[in-house]
Amino acid sequence: MRIGMLTSGGDCQGLNAALRGVAKTLYNEFGDKLTLYGIRDGYRGLIEGDYHEMKESDFSDILTVGGTILGTSRQPFKSMLKAEENEETKLEKMLKTIKEAKFDCLVILGGNGTHKTANLLSEHGVHVVTLPKTIDNDLWGTEMTFGFQSAVDIATTVIDSIHSTAFSHSRVFIVEVMGHKAGWLTLYAGIASGADVIIIPEIPYSAKAIAKAIQKREKSGKRFSILAVAEGAISQEEAKMSKKEFKAAREAMPYPSISYRIAEELKELTGQEIRVTIPGHYQRGGAPCPADRLLTSRLGVAAAQLIRDGKFGNMVAVQDDKIVPVPLSEVAGKLKTVPPDSDIVQAARDLGLSMGD
Amino acid sequence: MRIGMLTSGGDCQGLNAALRGVAKTLYNEFGDKLTLYGIRDGYRGLIEGDYHEMKESDFSDILTVGGTILGTSRQPFKSMLKAEENEETKLEKMLKTIKEAKFDCLVILGGNGTHKTANLLSEHGVHVVTLPKTIDNDLWGTEMTFGFQSAVDIATTVIDSIHSTAFSHSRVFIVEVMGHKAGWLTLYAGIASGADVIIIPEIPYSAKAIAKAIQKREKSGKRFSILAVAEGAISQEEAKMSKKEFKAAREAMPYPSISYRIAEELKELTGQEIRVTIPGHYQRGGAPCPADRLLTSRLGVAAAQLIRDGKFGNMVAVQDDKIVPVPLSEVAGKLKTVPPDSDIVQAARDLGLSMGD
Amino acid sequence: MRIGMLTSGGDCQGLNAALRGVAKTLYNEFGDKLTLYGIRDGYRGLIEGDYHEMKESDFSDILTVGGTILGTSRQPFKSMLKAEENEETKLEKMLKTIKEAKFDCLVILGGNGTHKTANLLSEHGVHVVTLPKTIDNDLWGTEMTFGFQSAVDIATTVIDSIHSTAFSHSRVFIVEVMGHKAGWLTLYAGIASGADVIIIPEIPYSAKAIAKAIQKREKSGKRFSILAVAEGAISQEEAKMSKKEFKAAREAMPYPSISYRIAEELKELTGQEIRVTIPGHYQRGGAPCPADRLLTSRLGVAAAQLIRDGKFGNMVAVQDDKIVPVPLSEVAGKLKTVPPDSDIVQAARDLGLSMGD
Amino acid sequence: MRIGMLTSGGDCQGLNAALRGVAKTLYNEFGDKLTLYGIRDGYRGLIEGDYHEMKESDFSDILTVGGTILGTSRQPFKSMLKAEENEETKLEKMLKTIKEAKFDCLVILGGNGTHKTANLLSEHGVHVVTLPKTIDNDLWGTEMTFGFQSAVDIATTVIDSIHSTAFSHSRVFIVEVMGHKAGWLTLYAGIASGADVIIIPEIPYSAKAIAKAIQKREKSGKRFSILAVAEGAISQEEAKMSKKEFKAAREAMPYPSISYRIAEELKELTGQEIRVTIPGHYQRGGAPCPADRLLTSRLGVAAAQLIRDGKFGNMVAVQDDKIVPVPLSEVAGKLKTVPPDSDIVQAARDLGLSMGD
Repeated sequence: MRIGMLTSGGDCQGLNAALRGVAKTLYNEFGDKLTLYGIRDGYRGLIEGDYHEMKESDFSDILTVGGTILGTSRQPFKSMLKAEENEETKLEKMLKTIKEAKFDCLVILGGNGTHKTANLLSEHGVHVVTLPKTIDNDLWGTEMTFGFQSAVDIATTVIDSIHSTAFSHSRVFIVEVMGHKAGWLTLYAGIASGADVIIIPEIPYSAKAIAKAIQKREKSGKRFSILAVAEGAISQEEAKMSKKEFKAAREAMPYPSISYRIAEELKELTGQEIRVTIPGHYQRGGAPCPADRLLTSRLGVAAAQLIRDGKFGNMVAVQDDKIVPVPLSEVAGKLKTVPPDSDIVQAARDLGLSMGD
Repeated sequence: MRIGMLTSGGDCQGLNAALRGVAKTLYNEFGDKLTLYGIRDGYRGLIEGDYHEMKESDFSDILTVGGTILGTSRQPFKSMLKAEENEETKLEKMLKTIKEAKFDCLVILGGNGTHKTANLLSEHGVHVVTLPKTIDNDLWGTEMTFGFQSAVDIATTVIDSIHSTAFSHSRVFIVEVMGHKAGWLTLYAGIASGADVIIIPEIPYSAKAIAKAIQKREKSGKRFSILAVAEGAISQEEAKMSKKEFKAAREAMPYPSISYRIAEELKELTGQEIRVTIPGHYQRGGAPCPADRLLTSRLGVAAAQLIRDGKFGNMVAVQDDKIVPVPLSEVAGKLKTVPPDSDIVQAARDLGLSMGD
Repeated sequence: MRIGMLTSGGDCQGLNAALRGVAKTLYNEFGDKLTLYGIRDGYRGLIEGDYHEMKESDFSDILTVGGTILGTSRQPFKSMLKAEENEETKLEKMLKTIKEAKFDCLVILGGNGTHKTANLLSEHGVHVVTLPKTIDNDLWGTEMTFGFQSAVDIATTVIDSIHSTAFSHSRVFIVEVMGHKAGWLTLYAGIASGADVIIIPEIPYSAKAIAKAIQKREKSGKRFSILAVAEGAISQEEAKMSKKEFKAAREAMPYPSISYRIAEELKELTGQEIRVTIPGHYQRGGAPCPADRLLTSRLGVAAAQLIRDGKFGNMVAVQDDKIVPVPLSEVAGKLKTVPPDSDIVQAARDLGLSMGD
Repeated sequence: MRIGMLTSGGDCQGLNAALRGVAKTLYNEFGDKLTLYGIRDGYRGLIEGDYHEMKESDFSDILTVGGTILGTSRQPFKSMLKAEENEETKLEKMLKTIKEAKFDCLVILGGNGTHKTANLLSEHGVHVVTLPKTIDNDLWGTEMTFGFQSAVDIATTVIDSIHSTAFSHSRVFIVEVMGHKAGWLTLYAGIASGADVIIIPEIPYSAKAIAKAIQKREKSGKRFSILAVAEGAISQEEAKMSKKEFKAAREAMPYPSISYRIAEELKELTGQEIRVTIPGHYQRGGAPCPADRLLTSRLGVAAAQLIRDGKFGNMVAVQDDKIVPVPLSEVAGKLKTVPPDSDIVQAARDLGLSMGD
């Protein structure tokens, strides 16, 4: 039993914990019959044949360690199929590595882009089992991805901290939370931290509506407001644009990120200085929270069992708080976004928060 | 609309966040028509007529505050129905207070004992809506209680910390985790912290089995072991005793808690000194974790909606990650314990952990 | 005994703890003879006569609360002395408020700007005692200001977290740490977090020297580097400029902050993408760390004793780990920066870190 | 240059950070001429010749890791000099190992017991440099030991958390803090967490005085009290006993630790149930706090410099916030306890806290 493991895409909390979960269960199941290989820097290592044998002790003491001991890289899916004339495609190179290394199975940890390539490999006959990794929680087929809950903890802590400054200076603050297409992280951290306005990509915002929410608070004696804004926030005007128009509009935008534009719009509407805080990559680093350690352990066990049972071509997923396999073909290329009428969005509104619309 | 609120039983993280969730939603829904009353120290305040009008601002800035602004107390359920001759029972006194205060509804936050009394009030015609509070997660009818995830975070952090000492001194450590009847907290924190042995009340332990697990680790070169032990742990011998025999056995036990006995048993079997750490009430104090703040917010909204819709006699519960009402009559008097064959226990075993049996 | 208290300048951790320290000691000393007044939003409240009587219970439960219960504001020192024709200066308005309110003494918490105005008031006969507040630790006359150690904790935690991402992606990261004129925060957090390069305003940087440090690490097999950069970092070229030239150069700089420019410079020199994280105001919010709570308690006690002993016109300061009074005239207008040859800078160099020069 | 390193005594936060500081500075200074050896489990490894060559990469990524990568053990000083007839003493065995291994110098990290043996080795001609490690901060000759500030952070966090339970249940709580002979940890954590009563070994307590402090709080409307009690607390009666009487009294004490006795005494005097929480070893585990990481880095640099300069027989110490060498002969066998009239004790009293006397 020769198994190759790789972590791909942006790193997040829990990658090592998940690797440990898979490895401990496999060693427990197969003992000496098992050899694990670490593939370096995600698909890059698979393309370039950069892998190495691992020992059981490599998986000790990594439960709480942030990042990934295997390294990772981002690989655009499209480039996997293209090649210069007389050159192998990256897909062909990967298949060659797998053949040469005699991998019986690949264990792949990643998010959306990663799963497209994993599905491609599966379609080409490679035995693949995957685990859902992303702080964005936007992977189709699973209620929860690992990394998400750790990122919620960090984003919430940052907004908590901004509270004291916002209160003391009677100011409006924007905290920009990670999430380009999906607002899960902003929504969860926004409610958990008691933010006053939450802006997510799924609900295009109106600067006037936000300004009104701020002014309503002022009238009730609350001299500060905190906005949790997803980095992928879009305005109601932008929501009506064609893809091309939108791209042009954003390229012309004279701000390093959307929060600065919203700050400017609000300044004009309210006359107040708006401060912006962007915790950025801080949200994906460091030790996984206990909930992510439990989740990755459970996912790791389930992935190992799929290998034992020969059920390849699946991602291990959370559904109704249980771990179940989901075919890669159902996961690849799809995005799980926040339904604008979901009960959590509705709960935020019921609590008196503004969704900026 | 006159609503009385009380928190009862052992305090835990998220009580204030839950009160805030209910209050914000009610104020948002009913505005000036609403008057909220805080009942002091749980059922004691209801019995003695100790309550006071609250203002909307009382619920500001309490999202992250530990404990309960209303105070709490433990009240044995049985005493509610008994009274001296010519005296009113406590139940009668509570009903009198409710009538005098003209409460249209009571919002009650508590665990198992609390829900028995809440159901009793409901059976006597009082409009009651409850929220499931306990770090033990042992309340029937809900997958999750608030406080639990915060306690998991703390217990996990303590075991994390003990790791470095256990490793450095090559020692065996017991960390005693809260939980008299249910092992959820120990099980979750044990897996999340990478403990080597997990002992829960639902799976009676054998000291020999634990000693074997420790010795197996030693043989594989691991010079330390960490045991997560629920305070309600029982041995396989004790599991066979009658209730009376068990009580007598425990009263004769010359240790302040079960962990010291297990330490002694293991010392005899392994020849090693075993250290015990008991974080105790530390596990139920302080700010709620983000997950508990989100949960309490959602539960608070749901409780307020039940009041709005006149659906009394229910607890708001989590089922399949949704918030649903569950009749008090179904909740009262039942305990949700860890099924010994649950998938999480099985995951622990698959990872190579010992459950001490 | 009528005492007015105000907090001025940027907020930071420990302001409430310090107010509590002063108040508890004064109540303990003077009992009923004491009346404390809270002046709202720093000098603004003193100028506009916006103050209110406080109760002993106002100082309960604020030891761990971030921000300031009194509010704060920034007031440019120069504007204190200027006024429209026929108008009172702000200084005159403050003196009038003090007279009308019959304050026997002012307790002022603040940083550099705040102390200039405090000294001005003292020179005009007002009884003043001050406490040294700033996350920058750049106040003359004291080895330590409160807020600093809490900010070190946060900045260190952020850099810790970035480590896992930098390692996993084999990338160079810049974390921009607060500090316009003084590099204490960057220096302490940089060493404490194991950063590889530390850039502080006191030691102008050379992009080439930084690039060299990164490449030296690469050669030794370390595929990532972390730079802790003070927001007030300046290049060696800029250090040679006149004040006017420098101002012009910075206004022409097409980046929201210096870190982006350094990232661009390094990209050109090393060919690598450099990521930037800016935790911003997150560094000054939230609960004070235990060290700051102890420090503010000790400073508060000392300030109260100066009032009791009638020793006005002083700031309470830390010298040789003792709390001593320092005349305001010695503090006002001076800045404590990092001596480039200080033993802590030398320690960083001895550990193999680059100071970017 | 062959240097052996060992860590001895109870583990604490910062041991690895200190080893890293010494190693990085030595590698930076001596490069290829240096070989470092890790001696396993403190003096045990030196006695038994259990040591191994280390690589520069062994010191990477250990800055934040709790415990000690070298292992540690407790060794009673007296046994170093005693031996069976015809047997070598442990001292002789250690000298033999040092000779055989050709160590040019030993770097020893430890607390009081460790320093006695280190001094003994030094007196026998061994080149020794030591670093002051202990969460108790009770080492003579230095204002600060590493581990102490991390332990203060943890003990403070525990007491913080207990606050919410104490408040919610209107109860009196005892938190037992580590420290057998010295009360530094209890004193610092007690003030930092806002405890109401602080009991340290240096100030024998009177149960009546404590009860009075609790009752005074009750009278002022505060329904709860928190006592920070050092594990080495002694009563005023015990303070008058001879050593022998004291030992007998303690052996007859029917409680696992002093806090339970104080709880019992207070229960009798106040009629209230008193709860006890004992965080135990949790206080010495886990990652060092940023302040300890900075301190260990500075101490490590200084130790390396003493080696470079041939200044053996010294401990690196903190005096007036500077790192200085102190002769081992001055350190060994002496204890630094809290002066009962120190300014920090006085500050606690001025804040209205009871010292239990």
